[in-house]
Amino acid sequence: MKFGGTSVGDVDRIKNAAAKVAAEVQRGHKVAVVVSAMAGATDGLINLCRSVTPHYDLREYDAVVSTGEQITAGLMALALRQHGLTARSWQGWQLPLKTDGNYGNARIMSIDGDKARERILDGEIAVLAGFQGINDDNRITTLGRGGSDTSAVALAIAIKADRCDIYTDVAGVYTADPRIVTKARKMSRVSYEEMLELASLGAKVLHTRSVELGMRYRMPIQVLSTFANALGSDTPGTILTDGDETMEQNMVTGIAYNSNQAKITLAKVVDKPGIAAAVFAPLARAGINVDMIVQTDSTETGSTDITFTVGKNDLERACKILESERGTIQYSNLQSSADVTKISLVGFGMRSHSGVAATMFETLASKGINIQVIETSEINTSVLIDEEYTELALRALHTAYGLDGQ
Amino acid sequence: MKFGGTSVGDVDRIKNAAAKVAAEVQRGHKVAVVVSAMAGATDGLINLCRSVTPHYDLREYDAVVSTGEQITAGLMALALRQHGLTARSWQGWQLPLKTDGNYGNARIMSIDGDKARERILDGEIAVLAGFQGINDDNRITTLGRGGSDTSAVALAIAIKADRCDIYTDVAGVYTADPRIVTKARKMSRVSYEEMLELASLGAKVLHTRSVELGMRYRMPIQVLSTFANALGSDTPGTILTDGDETMEQNMVTGIAYNSNQAKITLAKVVDKPGIAAAVFAPLARAGINVDMIVQTDSTETGSTDITFTVGKNDLERACKILESERGTIQYSNLQSSADVTKISLVGFGMRSHSGVAATMFETLASKGINIQVIETSEINTSVLIDEEYTELALRALHTAYGLDGQ
Repeated sequence: MKFGGTSVGDVDRIKNAAAKVAAEVQRGHKVAVVVSAMAGATDGLINLCRSVTPHYDLREYDAVVSTGEQITAGLMALALRQHGLTARSWQGWQLPLKTDGNYGNARIMSIDGDKARERILDGEIAVLAGFQGINDDNRITTLGRGGSDTSAVALAIAIKADRCDIYTDVAGVYTADPRIVTKARKMSRVSYEEMLELASLGAKVLHTRSVELGMRYRMPIQVLSTFANALGSDTPGTILTDGDETMEQNMVTGIAYNSNQAKITLAKVVDKPGIAAAVFAPLARAGINVDMIVQTDSTETGSTDITFTVGKNDLERACKILESERGTIQYSNLQSSADVTKISLVGFGMRSHSGVAATMFETLASKGINIQVIETSEINTSVLIDEEYTELALRALHTAYGLDGQ
Repeated sequence: MKFGGTSVGDVDRIKNAAAKVAAEVQRGHKVAVVVSAMAGATDGLINLCRSVTPHYDLREYDAVVSTGEQITAGLMALALRQHGLTARSWQGWQLPLKTDGNYGNARIMSIDGDKARERILDGEIAVLAGFQGINDDNRITTLGRGGSDTSAVALAIAIKADRCDIYTDVAGVYTADPRIVTKARKMSRVSYEEMLELASLGAKVLHTRSVELGMRYRMPIQVLSTFANALGSDTPGTILTDGDETMEQNMVTGIAYNSNQAKITLAKVVDKPGIAAAVFAPLARAGINVDMIVQTDSTETGSTDITFTVGKNDLERACKILESERGTIQYSNLQSSADVTKISLVGFGMRSHSGVAATMFETLASKGINIQVIETSEINTSVLIDEEYTELALRALHTAYGLDGQ
């Protein structure tokens, strides 16, 4: 049972989460718990580091920021003991949970669940501080934002759990963001692959890496709400399972959007071998991720237009780099816009069903929404549109693909 | 260099402390730093534990509360890097600093300073989170209030330091509390033994256990102010050294007081063998420490009066226990008072100089102060008086023993 930052946002919420654990134990289950920092705690710790120096060393940042989860783990163990349960907190170094040396955004290399599993089987609840591990240098590393989801799935695998329940502030995975699309439906099941697509395309309900990990080890993951029921039987959430179990579902499973996109177009680039490398290599060296890329056909003119997207925060830096490389790349004009959103349909076998994309284009055209870039893969069809049409596009597409609930 | 809670009370003070470390490095020294939690942080964490449950488990309390020092250690390392120094934070488990299993008030069993010393000799500043270690069960233990002083002296011994400087909010060790006795003088030197007496009798400048440790390993300890000079050469504080170096000093080195005292008198106790055990064993079982004890002579009456002191917080509990044991102890009357203070003269060879005690009694009598209990040892002479005379008694005695400065 993993509880996120809002689920353990204050002492009362920690007690509420502990009551949910106690109810699960009463149902005869043996439980391990993974906790995030109390909502706001991590930001407070980051601000402390920043106020010492804006260019903080990530090794010390990790040592400082990881204390947030340590505190929640201790408090959760205390709250569980109030229910007459035996419980103990575990920090990353105590298992140990080993990571690579990438401070601030480490990846899990291995996790030793044997000691914890032994004690869990003896009836002691293990409460793991999420988000953290140690590297070969015996120093604390953090797993990056949202990393506690990954901690939870990794621990579930290590202790051979039957299921990993992720308690959060939404009731599950929806066909679209329910704050925008009021007719969005909670899915009872979704495949790992589709969830991975939804997560990486902007659905914030689960951390991408936790889904990857669950998929690799076939660990059933349930996303459900901490707040739906005060106690007793939880309202079922969304279960992540293998793709073949969802074969009979709709072609389009869900619709995601990502507003953290900015568009850059290089016009009339001289089309010669190696031109893509000339454009994208300097951006990669600067650590700028490029998402959608389209290049127009150049057989007739000898020059081509290249359009691609980067994160909004990277736009200014990307433009400066491209301007300084103008001599090498040889383009006539650079245009950019930060006012764009990427809308993505997610579902299996999309490319082989041309009707799916056609419905998307017709639907957007009927609402007067211009498509700036199109990108398709086996599992998603994405378009870049003007940001101000985001909500309109989501609702129209949700209806067009028959996803609306009652 | 050890910095206490007020010395690292906020980010600016951490930067100030870092500047002091940088100045010390500039003078050619190699430095290790030990830090407390930021002032107030530990209380905040204790309150979090209490709000989950008033009867918290000390194992989880330790896991939660120890994060305060971890945060300061990380921030201090960041601040030192801003001075172009290389620095890294160490947590108790990383050295490791091993303690016994006494959660909440653990004692240091061993400390491995080899790795840290090697890196310090290479020019890297070690910043240790004070107050904490790990036990044989690989769990975090804290050393009790003021434990960071002990961490500092232990680390100094382990890395074979030349000196342990304790930076605090006072300029050193005074002949009496300078907030009360304005003529109190800062001592340039004081013996470990006298400091131990002063600390255990109420002077709060150093943690008793840190003095014991320094004495056992003959580690020179300096107490000095973090705030006396913004930068550059520090005003010298008070150095703790071997007793023989202070032989030529005054008979009375300093005067301490302890207002956390409450007095209990059992009147007309039937005097028979084992009566002291009947009184004090039930209190010991309840974890109540007894300080001063006097028993009147009973050869003529066959009954005796027993007077002793306990901590103010324990008074109510102690009285209840003694009332419930009345049948066993057989006393006629129980009287108690929380309005008492213990005043102590500290200095070597006191018992062999009867004039010392006589001066004390005369001085107090001349101010109309009644002495309720007297206790003497080789190194201190203490009296219990009415609490409201505390300041008057301290000032009068300070003058009477020639301790007043210019």
